[in-house]
Formats: sequence, structure tokens, C-alpha cells
Amino acid sequence: MSDTFDLIVVGGGPGGYVAALRASQLGMSVAVVESTHLGGICLNWGCIPTKALLRSSEIHHLLHELDSYGFSADNIKFDIPKIVARSRAVVKRMNTGVAHLLKKAKVQVFDGRAKLAGKAGEAHKVSITKDGQEIAVIKAPHVILATGAKARQLAGLETDGHLVWGAREAMTPTELPKRLLVIGSGAIGVEFASFYRNMGSEVTIAEVADRILIAEDPEISAAARKSFEKQGIKIITNAKVGPLQKGSNEVSTTIESPQGTVNLTVDRVICAVGIVGNVDDLGLENTKVQIDRTHIITNEFCETAELGVYAIGDVAGAPWLAHKASHEAVICVEKIAGRSPEPLHPLNIPGCTYSRPQVASVGLSEEKAIAAGHKVRVGRFPLMANGKAVAMGETDGMVKTVFDATTGELLGAHMIGAEVTEMIQGYVIARTGELTEAELMETVFPHPTISETMHEATLAAFDGPLHI
Amino acid sequence: MSDTFDLIVVGGGPGGYVAALRASQLGMSVAVVESTHLGGICLNWGCIPTKALLRSSEIHHLLHELDSYGFSADNIKFDIPKIVARSRAVVKRMNTGVAHLLKKAKVQVFDGRAKLAGKAGEAHKVSITKDGQEIAVIKAPHVILATGAKARQLAGLETDGHLVWGAREAMTPTELPKRLLVIGSGAIGVEFASFYRNMGSEVTIAEVADRILIAEDPEISAAARKSFEKQGIKIITNAKVGPLQKGSNEVSTTIESPQGTVNLTVDRVICAVGIVGNVDDLGLENTKVQIDRTHIITNEFCETAELGVYAIGDVAGAPWLAHKASHEAVICVEKIAGRSPEPLHPLNIPGCTYSRPQVASVGLSEEKAIAAGHKVRVGRFPLMANGKAVAMGETDGMVKTVFDATTGELLGAHMIGAEVTEMIQGYVIARTGELTEAELMETVFPHPTISETMHEATLAAFDGPLHI
Repeated sequence: MSDTFDLIVVGGGPGGYVAALRASQLGMSVAVVESTHLGGICLNWGCIPTKALLRSSEIHHLLHELDSYGFSADNIKFDIPKIVARSRAVVKRMNTGVAHLLKKAKVQVFDGRAKLAGKAGEAHKVSITKDGQEIAVIKAPHVILATGAKARQLAGLETDGHLVWGAREAMTPTELPKRLLVIGSGAIGVEFASFYRNMGSEVTIAEVADRILIAEDPEISAAARKSFEKQGIKIITNAKVGPLQKGSNEVSTTIESPQGTVNLTVDRVICAVGIVGNVDDLGLENTKVQIDRTHIITNEFCETAELGVYAIGDVAGAPWLAHKASHEAVICVEKIAGRSPEPLHPLNIPGCTYSRPQVASVGLSEEKAIAAGHKVRVGRFPLMANGKAVAMGETDGMVKTVFDATTGELLGAHMIGAEVTEMIQGYVIARTGELTEAELMETVFPHPTISETMHEATLAAFDGPLHI
Repeated sequence: MSDTFDLIVVGGGPGGYVAALRASQLGMSVAVVESTHLGGICLNWGCIPTKALLRSSEIHHLLHELDSYGFSADNIKFDIPKIVARSRAVVKRMNTGVAHLLKKAKVQVFDGRAKLAGKAGEAHKVSITKDGQEIAVIKAPHVILATGAKARQLAGLETDGHLVWGAREAMTPTELPKRLLVIGSGAIGVEFASFYRNMGSEVTIAEVADRILIAEDPEISAAARKSFEKQGIKIITNAKVGPLQKGSNEVSTTIESPQGTVNLTVDRVICAVGIVGNVDDLGLENTKVQIDRTHIITNEFCETAELGVYAIGDVAGAPWLAHKASHEAVICVEKIAGRSPEPLHPLNIPGCTYSRPQVASVGLSEEKAIAAGHKVRVGRFPLMANGKAVAMGETDGMVKTVFDATTGELLGAHMIGAEVTEMIQGYVIARTGELTEAELMETVFPHPTISETMHEATLAAFDGPLHI
């Protein structure tokens, strides 16, 4: 076994393993160093297991709507350990899949922690340790740092594995908390709130900002809030969460907001208040790599200030999304291979939240488009006026489009409702292909689908919608 | 009330009412003549009610998979009249919606049968009769025929309203047939087969061609067949259905195929063997309008050979799809209004089948692309290798792309699996915008979604897929 590679990838998450696979396709010899689990947080403790849980929770919701669809059933029960076990089985299957893909691609996987350890000629040396012992030193002219990120811990709200949960505890409950406080209303907080509410918990969301899902267009935030509140989720914005008073099996706190002070006692608290990059113990102090608030600074091709050292994915900054990481992986590797990849355009990266209803968007919100100096045309269309949505019993939601009034460029698209996470790609394709309203208006969206609302929301910004 | 309009639309289905709405947006005075129900077959006896039924039947399927998602329930029951009533309530809501839209647009709706009745100067006269009595004669320089189509009746297999069902009887059952024969495996036949199988009927499909879903790429037909057979649907292709022997409450017949002769006794037969255009009693014999096998011949702007007379939708020929009708409506009206609409490109019209699994496609199949002289690159990706599909428990399906090897043009895309009817629009947008593999490869599909398979199926045709 050689200790010299064309490329060393530090981290086996969606950025890291995709970088390795793409490099292998391009003929490079590749090593991946991963300390914990292939697939990273996303596959093991993020995107994938939560989707499995959310699927179960949506079925639970449906079981309470059976009558409206013409069904009945008695004695409906769920088994939390079984629901969690299904989610973990999905993870196991995908995780094994990644190991298999890397093996097939002849990528060498090292189980350990990696640290940059100086140079040997043009090559960077990487020291690998396991349980504190150095097990190998390998080298390559190119090293990609794909070490990801971890949950931010706020003073006084640190996860404790018992009463105050992080994502791991929140996705492996042994029983359903009757009362739950979710601190933070980004995609992660909202997805947990949705899961537990669907399963029957009493859920309160506390958000420090003046609206939930702050990354979304304010109209979508408002629609989401209305929908969640209709489902019984309590939402407090502009919230200041006071000290947690922990009992043996419950937590009390005080939440202040402009609406007044709420005294709250819950069984569990989920804290989802952002993330910090994994930049510690990588040996960066002896390199030119620059860090800005736990994130490695890179250029459009993921290059750091240290020649031959690259960073991709969460550790290289927002948006903290697996598909951003994997696309950066491809761009970075293709650049290393001497190809001419197109840099990633941040406004062409969609964002999704898999709550009920789902939320998905790409590009600029209306307010950001205006702030960027665009004269805009805005279209809106409600799912309530869509035949398929009515037939499905899924009429909660809307689509909003933002176009440049002068050029017709699609500046942004914002969706809330059933299956919008599967639909947003149409608008992403339109943005990537630099299409205007003309092509979107000419596009024949199939009938009857909820995707017809994407057409109507375009017509609404120009000639006027047909079905409202 | 004037008897003179800028435009008369004959037929109030998805082509007709959209033509009226668009014409009204453009400032025309419009009359619609509809003899039966606004919204046409699509809204009243087609797309919309079947989607409501299919939704219920998918819930029934889920109810038998509860254990795998961590749930249990006893005494699961369904109430067919209630399921049908829900479907009819959806129709009622949409139908009322169309009436409301037309009223808001100040479109004059006549309840009666329309017939071209000669000219008055430059205007065409239209005679309207109700119960055989002429109730009005109206005129306009432009008349759009949007009379739709009806089910083809084969000799010996005519629907009889009791044992041999057409679409109407099939979507308003009073009880579930235990044994069902579906003749014809186009979208309509397959959707009914899927509905009844999901609900628990024993279903046999007899198809005269050598594969089901003949409009689809053969690989998709094969995947659909495999999936339906796994669900317990019996499929006989190259089938010759013999004479029907009708009992008081069952039907016997003999089906011959290369695999042998099958004697079959069923409770009901559904006949879905194509459609014929509604061209009778329209007064066309005194015009220059030309007809080819029940369909009116038109040019790319829906103009017939008779100046000022247009035809759109099903009566103007295949594909018999509501979204084709409504886009022709817009093109036809914009042309009348002196705009310069882009003609409809037949290969940019998607087709969808809402069975379990769903099927959706746009453009050329691989074999048709080759027959058309293209050198092709083909990509395939299975849903089984997609994280979201695994998390959802919906791993049955695949995506197939066909690109021109020289230009990179996306020639066709073919999908089978969960939610593909909502996803196909991305490929339709790509085709409409004349994008190539380069833009599709650069597009950031959100993770985790089933739509990532659209990306992988593109990579598979070129650089190679990442996740298989």
C-alpha cells in the first residue's frame, strides 16, 4: 500500500466522499480520512434519518384524517422505538452504500483523524491518528478539507443528552415527549417541530428573530407560521429564552417577547441555533489557510490561501447544505484535474425544509431583489386554486415568483406546500439555464399536477394567472 | 345582451374555458357554448376525479404497510360510496371554480349545443339548441371548436353501464368489484387498474400491443409491468379478447395471446381503448374544415381550412391531454389577437400516468431518437440508489435520459416512481429552454430529494453517475 496519493480528502461526508468519487472517475488515486462515519452528519445524523422520521410522522397525520378520505380504523398506535429503528436502518443502508461506492472506486479509506503535518517537497503530508496514536502519514499534492460542522452550543442552552437535546437525541427518542420546546426555527428546528407535532407532542418554537425560517422570503415565513399555528404549534418570535431550570425529567423556563412573558414547563428542549465549522486540530496553524468565524476562507474554486489545500461544504461556509458540499466537491476536483468547471453561483442553490407543509426556494426574496437594485415583477398563486392539490387534500400553500421587470430574469422562486421540495428543481434549472419568463410561460406543465402552480405564478407576474 | 362577440368558443373543457379566459384578458368579448358541464371531461369525468380516487387508493395501500413505518391499527375499513363522494365533491368544487372564473372574466356562457350556421358578412353564425330547440343564434369573426373527444367503442365491447364500464361507471362504483378486467393499457386503463388493485380487487389487464403504456419508452413500459405484476396485477400483452359472455352479475371471456388461452370470469370489465373526436353535428359539412379520422385538421396556430374557424384540444388530435388543450387555447387566442405566440412543440408536451408507481415523460424515447437519426447518449438511474426514496420507502422506479451525443440536446426524459409527475416539469423546462447536458449537470438539485435522480441520470449519460 502506497502512502502517496494524487488527492487526500479529509472528511467522508457528502462533500468529501463525492470529491473522492469524482476524483476517482477522473483517474486520480484518492485517500479519504474519516474519523466517525462515512456519509457524515447529513447521512448519519441529518438529512436522511430526519426524512425517514418525517415520513412516519406524515403517516401518523394521515391516520388522523382517514375519515375525510373514506377510511376508518380502530386502535391506531405507534411504536417510537420501531419508528427510530426504521430511520436508523435507512441510515445503515445508505452508509453501507457509500462504503461500497468508495470501494468500487478504489478509494483508500482511513479510519482516523487527519491533521496537516507540513510538506514533503510539493506534497502536503497528512498525519492520521486513531485514539491518540498516529497510525499513518500519507501525502498528496492536493488536500481537500471537508470536515463539516457541528451544532452551535449557546451558553446555558448546551445539549446535555437528557433534557436538552441536540439533533442526535432528537432523532433517537425512546419515548415521545409530551411537551417540547424547540429553540431556533431554521430548517432543522422547524423539521423537528413538525415531526413531533405530527406525532402528537405539544410543541413551542422560540425564535430570536422576528419571523421563523429567516432564510426564506417573509411571505413564505408568514404562510409557514400560519400553517404551523393552525396545526397547534405555538410560535414565539423576538423571543428571549431565560435560564433553564432543570428538574429530574422536565425543564422550566421563561420566554420573553414583545407579546409578554411566557412561563413554560416542558419535558424536553431541542436546541437548533446554527452551526460552527469543524476547524480545530487540522494543523491549519502552520499553513496559510485563513479562517473567518470557524469557516475556512476559499475562492470560487474552493482554493484556500495555501497552495494545494482546498475546503468544501459546511467547513467552507454557508449555505450549510449537502448539495452545496457535493457540487463544490465536483467543481474543486475538476479544477484540480485541469478542467474548466463553472463556479457555483450561490443564488442557484436551492434550500428545502421538509416540514408539513414543505418549504423550498431558490434565488432572491422579493425584498432582497429590491435591495439589490432590481425593479421587480412578482407573481403569486395559491395551491387552493390548483386541481391536483384539491384532489390530494393538500391545499395549504403557495408559490411566489420574483422576476426582473426589465430583463425578465427569474430572480427568485419561493414555494410552500405539498411536494415543493421535489418541484423546486424546475426553477433551479430555469435559473441555471438563465431562462426568462418567456420560456417559463411557454413551458407545458402537465395537468393535473401541483407543478401547474409554478406556471400560474409566472403568468401572475406578467399576463395574469388563468385559474384565479 | 348582444348576440355579437369577438370570439365564440364551442366547448367548455380545459381548452375551451382557457381560450375564453385568455381572450377576456386580451380584451375580447367572448361567448362559450357548453352542452354538458363546464370543465369538460377532464375536470368532470377524467383527470380530476381519478386523482381524488387514486389518492384514496394510495392511502389504502399505505394502511397495509403500516407496520413497516412503525404503526398499527385494527379494523381497517373503507367506504366506497364515501370515497366516490369525496371525488365528486372535488369535481364540484373545481367545476364551480370554472363557472366563477368565467363570470369574473365577463364571459357569456350558453347552456346548449352549438352548430356552425353559415356566415353573416365576415362573421360566423353559431346556432345554439337546447333539447332540440334553437335558443339563440350568435355570431363572431372567430370561432374556436373545443368539443373534445369521447371513449372509442369497440364492437362487442361497448360499455353497457352495468357489466362493461366506461370511465364514468369506473369512477362511480357503488361497491368494489372483486374481479376486474381492464381492456387497454394506456394511461386511463392503467390508472383504473392501479386504483382497483390498491383497493383490493383482482385485476387483469389485456393489451392488444406487445407492451403496456405503449406511448412510453419500452424500458419504462417494462419497469411498469414488473412493478404492477409485483403488486399482483395480471398482465396479458398481444392479447385478443374474445366475445363477452354476460351473466346477470359477471362476465366471462377468453383471452388469447402467444402465452396461450386464458378463460376469465370477472365481475366487471373496464374498456379504455382510445378516444374519438367529437366532430358530429357541428355544421362542419358546410365549411372548408377538414377532418381526418374524427379529428379536425389544423396548422401550428390551430387554424382550420375555414378562415376564422379554429380547433384546439382533443378534437384537434393527439396527444389527448388537457395541458395540450389549454396551451393550444392560449396560442390560438394570442394569434387571433395579433400577438406572435410560439407554436406548441409536440416533443415538449409531457405525458403523465398517475398509477402507483407514477410514470412521466417528455420528448423522444431512445428508440424513436435513434429512428429519427440521432446518435444518442443514454443515462439511467434507479430510485433504489436515492437516499430520499429509501427514507420514504419508495424505491421502485428509475429515470432514463436520452441526449443527442453530438449537440448535448436533451431529446427525451422518462421517469417511473414516486412523485415523478411533479418532477417531470424540470425536464420540460430544460427542453423548452433548449438546454443541454452542461446546464443540467451544473444544476444543483436539492438534497435529499428524489429529484436528485434527474441529475444522476444526466451524469450517467456523460461523465458517469456518482451514486451507483
